[in-house]
Amino acid sequence: MAAFADRFVVPTRGKGTYEITAACERIVAASGIRTGTATIFVQHTSCSLVIYENADPSARTDLHQFFDRLVPEDTPYFIHTDEGPDDMPSHLRMALTRTSEVVPILQGQLALGTWQGIFLFEHRCAAHTRSIVVSVLGE
Amino acid sequence: MAAFADRFVVPTRGKGTYEITAACERIVAASGIRTGTATIFVQHTSCSLVIYENADPSARTDLHQFFDRLVPEDTPYFIHTDEGPDDMPSHLRMALTRTSEVVPILQGQLALGTWQGIFLFEHRCAAHTRSIVVSVLGE
Amino acid sequence: MAAFADRFVVPTRGKGTYEITAACERIVAASGIRTGTATIFVQHTSCSLVIYENADPSARTDLHQFFDRLVPEDTPYFIHTDEGPDDMPSHLRMALTRTSEVVPILQGQLALGTWQGIFLFEHRCAAHTRSIVVSVLGE
Repeated sequence: MAAFADRFVVPTRGKGTYEITAACERIVAASGIRTGTATIFVQHTSCSLVIYENADPSARTDLHQFFDRLVPEDTPYFIHTDEGPDDMPSHLRMALTRTSEVVPILQGQLALGTWQGIFLFEHRCAAHTRSIVVSVLGE
Repeated sequence: MAAFADRFVVPTRGKGTYEITAACERIVAASGIRTGTATIFVQHTSCSLVIYENADPSARTDLHQFFDRLVPEDTPYFIHTDEGPDDMPSHLRMALTRTSEVVPILQGQLALGTWQGIFLFEHRCAAHTRSIVVSVLGE
Repeated sequence: MAAFADRFVVPTRGKGTYEITAACERIVAASGIRTGTATIFVQHTSCSLVIYENADPSARTDLHQFFDRLVPEDTPYFIHTDEGPDDMPSHLRMALTRTSEVVPILQGQLALGTWQGIFLFEHRCAAHTRSIVVSVLGE
């Protein structure tokens, strides 16, 4: 059994989803672990993670539209507004999705299904540098 | 310390929740691990997992109704519609719930609370065969 | 490699968020594990966990307001109503957030970002004693 950890950053260019599957797979390969789990963790509260359809970009367009409408920027009762109208919706869209994703490792690879990709879901409008930690456990 | 993994399939008969707690417990028992974690992972993007009230079926009826209304099938702005009206809502209901559940193992058993069960939440209308991977780590 | 587990309870005084980061960090410190993961798991279906902004309380006020509106107590189609009007919304607010949070451990500490805290999100109106299990794996 071994424990391995590494990190990487994702430069974002505003709201949307950014696939990070390959970067996560590289860390799993570097760990040498064949059976276990990879925990992918984002160290921020205004972006999140989601495992999502990786084939047809239209599914991601609809994802972005849906969250824009589910948590609108101009929500009148918000009081946490000092950092701009996209800040509070970012926290809520994060709470509704995920801060970590845990994926089994089988035969040295992430056990993702055919259509599953791991995405950073950026909720802020401005460009950011987002930090991801990956912890790999197993043998 | 040991790492153990196994998988099983769940035949679904359309939208709804299907309890998988017993199948997960069998894998934990087979692992022989007494203290650690079980990661339950669903390899699809149009169904999801949820730990939910396992006693009164009315709580699951309301869950199904709520998600039907939160992400309606006839949402006019959806563009990812080639696979039918239930496809895009499936991806969003998945993103709003969970792809993996991680449950501590204490004394060789899943440390679920009295009223907690693990459910596959099927979002597609047609019957599917859903694949679940369980990764058990510990000692 | 080692597996360590402990638990604690959180006395809640009605709906809202209760920070549990320090209690989780104490268990990580007690484990002696330097590299690995901590799985924080809540054993209930009417409260949940969320990693959330820990600095400005206004962000938590808006979180509470948002979930009150997203899943209203007086939803007319709910049938699971025997335990009062706040029970069914509690289950749904739980399903929309998280039952477990998995956080990498680096250099013996939870690898949380600067503004991340771990919170118990209580959805019931009455006071409750909530049970949290923390499983720590690594070396």
